[in-house]
Amino acid sequence: MNKGVNKLKAKLYLDDLTVGDVFESSQDYEITEEEIISFAKQYDPQVFHLEVEEAKETFFQGLAGSGWLTAAVSMRLTVLSLPLADGLIGAGVDLKWPSPTRAGDLLSVTITITDIRPSKSKPQQGIVSYETITKNQHGDIRQVTNARVLAFKK
Amino acid sequence: MNKGVNKLKAKLYLDDLTVGDVFESSQDYEITEEEIISFAKQYDPQVFHLEVEEAKETFFQGLAGSGWLTAAVSMRLTVLSLPLADGLIGAGVDLKWPSPTRAGDLLSVTITITDIRPSKSKPQQGIVSYETITKNQHGDIRQVTNARVLAFKK
Repeated sequence: MNKGVNKLKAKLYLDDLTVGDVFESSQDYEITEEEIISFAKQYDPQVFHLEVEEAKETFFQGLAGSGWLTAAVSMRLTVLSLPLADGLIGAGVDLKWPSPTRAGDLLSVTITITDIRPSKSKPQQGIVSYETITKNQHGDIRQVTNARVLAFKK
Repeated sequence: MNKGVNKLKAKLYLDDLTVGDVFESSQDYEITEEEIISFAKQYDPQVFHLEVEEAKETFFQGLAGSGWLTAAVSMRLTVLSLPLADGLIGAGVDLKWPSPTRAGDLLSVTITITDIRPSKSKPQQGIVSYETITKNQHGDIRQVTNARVLAFKK
């Protein structure tokens, strides 16, 4: 398994990637109560994402970040960690949230290339699959992402 | 296939739902250039989501909304359209983006219940699966979501 760290400075093309390459975020992202609430007001207005006190009586037993905030932050960390030359052009993704993001979480991602599939009809491009694990500072897994993105040869 | 419209006012429990129930958003959500860019600055800083002119030279041939913005807006529309009594507690989801969201899109969702699976070990709860189609005002499909959420009996 290659560490992708040495590849981080370069813009990466399809032919630069190998199954098993690992990329790690170099900076954490801090989740604050303010961001949980402001994101939820705009995009996920549910009581367990909005109201500190009332959230205690819900399934989450306290204020929980929207899974879509976790997804958006994970994307930011991924964009900064996996520098594909033509950008991350998503074909599809699946997400699981083993536990909710909480205020005070310092999120980081570890991205592993899991599959590389050159296009038969378009030899200059292919689909790269990767798994992203989003964790907090205690190692709690907040999101598991399996994504497929379009990548191009040099 | 039941239209879920009559169920919209009520808070819905597991036993209120039937496979084939359809829920539709009652209000559109307008995607603006400003929101595309501000969302991208925070969560998906890539040129095709940030820079109107430079985006023309990219795969998207113009400014494109982040798929995560489309996902977040789709969640807002879903929260307002599918009022589960205990909220939408996501177990997992998969997303596809057949085309990118553009400034000027008026997004709406159609949600169809696709599966209902009572828990064997916890008879008071179950997993509800639904498909959400996110479209703009011209019928262009911007996102297809297949989600699994936890729901509870009365």
